[in-house]
Amino acid sequence: MRVAILAHEKFPDRAKTAVGVLRYGDQEVVAVLDRDQAGTTVGDHLPDVGADDVPVVEGIDDVPDIDALLIGIAPIGGGFDESWRPDVRGAIERGADVVSGLHYFLNEDEELSRLADEHGVTLDDVRRPPDDLTVAEGIARDLDAEIVLTVGTDCSTGKMTASLELVEAAREAGLDAGFIPTGQTGIMIAGWGIPIDRTISDFTNGAVERMLVEAADDHDYLIVEGQGSIVHPAYSAVTCGILHGAMPDALVLCHAAGRDRIHGYESFPIPDPGELAELYVDLAEAVAPTELLGGALNTYRMDEVEAATAVEAYVDALGAPAVDPVRDGAGALVERF
Amino acid sequence: MRVAILAHEKFPDRAKTAVGVLRYGDQEVVAVLDRDQAGTTVGDHLPDVGADDVPVVEGIDDVPDIDALLIGIAPIGGGFDESWRPDVRGAIERGADVVSGLHYFLNEDEELSRLADEHGVTLDDVRRPPDDLTVAEGIARDLDAEIVLTVGTDCSTGKMTASLELVEAAREAGLDAGFIPTGQTGIMIAGWGIPIDRTISDFTNGAVERMLVEAADDHDYLIVEGQGSIVHPAYSAVTCGILHGAMPDALVLCHAAGRDRIHGYESFPIPDPGELAELYVDLAEAVAPTELLGGALNTYRMDEVEAATAVEAYVDALGAPAVDPVRDGAGALVERF
Repeated sequence: MRVAILAHEKFPDRAKTAVGVLRYGDQEVVAVLDRDQAGTTVGDHLPDVGADDVPVVEGIDDVPDIDALLIGIAPIGGGFDESWRPDVRGAIERGADVVSGLHYFLNEDEELSRLADEHGVTLDDVRRPPDDLTVAEGIARDLDAEIVLTVGTDCSTGKMTASLELVEAAREAGLDAGFIPTGQTGIMIAGWGIPIDRTISDFTNGAVERMLVEAADDHDYLIVEGQGSIVHPAYSAVTCGILHGAMPDALVLCHAAGRDRIHGYESFPIPDPGELAELYVDLAEAVAPTELLGGALNTYRMDEVEAATAVEAYVDALGAPAVDPVRDGAGALVERF
Repeated sequence: MRVAILAHEKFPDRAKTAVGVLRYGDQEVVAVLDRDQAGTTVGDHLPDVGADDVPVVEGIDDVPDIDALLIGIAPIGGGFDESWRPDVRGAIERGADVVSGLHYFLNEDEELSRLADEHGVTLDDVRRPPDDLTVAEGIARDLDAEIVLTVGTDCSTGKMTASLELVEAAREAGLDAGFIPTGQTGIMIAGWGIPIDRTISDFTNGAVERMLVEAADDHDYLIVEGQGSIVHPAYSAVTCGILHGAMPDALVLCHAAGRDRIHGYESFPIPDPGELAELYVDLAEAVAPTELLGGALNTYRMDEVEAATAVEAYVDALGAPAVDPVRDGAGALVERF
């Protein structure tokens, strides 16, 4: 699938989805739209994603043939920025689908939805869960695939990245591994999935199970992207639903080096990672067998020496192997599959 | 508030909501509608709910003046039985509100919704959560009220009943206690509340917190009705959201005597109640301090001797006091408040 990614005024530092798709997606990215960076190439900003010559362009008129336009940025609040409308309109008129992870549903935009009908293209609002979700049957543990789930000490600890690096390392090791996305960025990278944090709580476990059932025939290993944290004051329901819906054979605990309080909820300390890993295992095992495979540490903004020291300390805290998936890849964890 | 309760062909044995409102509700029930039992009184069926002389009637025309009609039964699937329509229509035409816990929303029924508009009455679909829910702020632990949460080893272990008996026993002991309903039956009994199992998972913790914030100024003790079980393969997301949204000072573990497998998920054993209580406390304490107050045992269908033996065994398993709230009330637990 040939895609262009809209990332106006935010590429690359504030365009998490755009960068995620460039780094991990199977799509062929043929252009990035950023009016502030027009005339540069992706390689000028991100030399390590294998897209050196992909142009950054002013708008949709400068984009070569595409199957889809991806909205690769999300303003705070998840709204639709009206300055994007000409590009989205142009994409539809050229017969391209539009994929969006915004809270604002393109399908509910009168003009865009009418235009999409006229041109026979799809507006894919990945943040809207399917209408026919239902309760879990409790069958994930019986699927013919090894299930690995990334869990976290907090939000934004690198669970999606760790999951994608696990998939990549598994494939490099010759294993047939698939990625199970649970959030909008992961869904846009993978091109399918259910936004678990938008599901009705009664169906949260069931939504995860449904994805695993769908994917289990296609892969030997399924790496499930976790969300939130089981000790997060606001998001633990989502985390618990994923933990018991997925019934993982193994857990990877993701942590942001140096963080000792829940982000945005600073009066809530993060427990010692070793104790938290035990809590995750105890809670999971009360439903289906599991084990701690190891840890993944996010060392963003540390230098090489600090990062290596932090990983060592994390290994000690967990009593299990750990990697920095961005610096070192996840090969050392995949060896334990 | 003067109410009539619709319970056609199901009163009392298959009319959980009707019986709950009669037993625990603050509403003044002036009639029960059951065409199969017309001519009897509530006392003929339920001698212990203080409603001996309340008539069971054929239909709405035999009901005295009311402020609201409550739908007190729920067919499998939660649909609206067309045979109820004349009664609901009649209630609206007499100026009464209608309160329903059905999955089928009365507000989406064209005729009833138009009729309600014409007569200036409210159709209260208690199973629909508010539209403006949001994420938890993590403030329940700071509220000026002692919070007690009933948790379960499974669904249908008597959490609502235990909660209502705790409220009643606390009031008898002179304490100012309020009930926080989280399911449709509890909501209809209490006359307010949010159906937590219908909330979007990101907002589940927040929905519970919001109810506690609303109620904390009015009471010294808040008894929160739990849902599901933290080891339930399908519903644990709901349970976890309530546990961390409520940040309870104390937990009461509810169990159905003799049950050792998750109902409807028979391949999943229920852990030893003592170990499960520890898991609940560990999971709760990783976010906010809590303790196990004791247990509540559902001994439905046991004789007196069996029930007493079962309660003793449950006390041993928990290593904490336990009561059978239906037979003995919850006074022994309230003494530990």
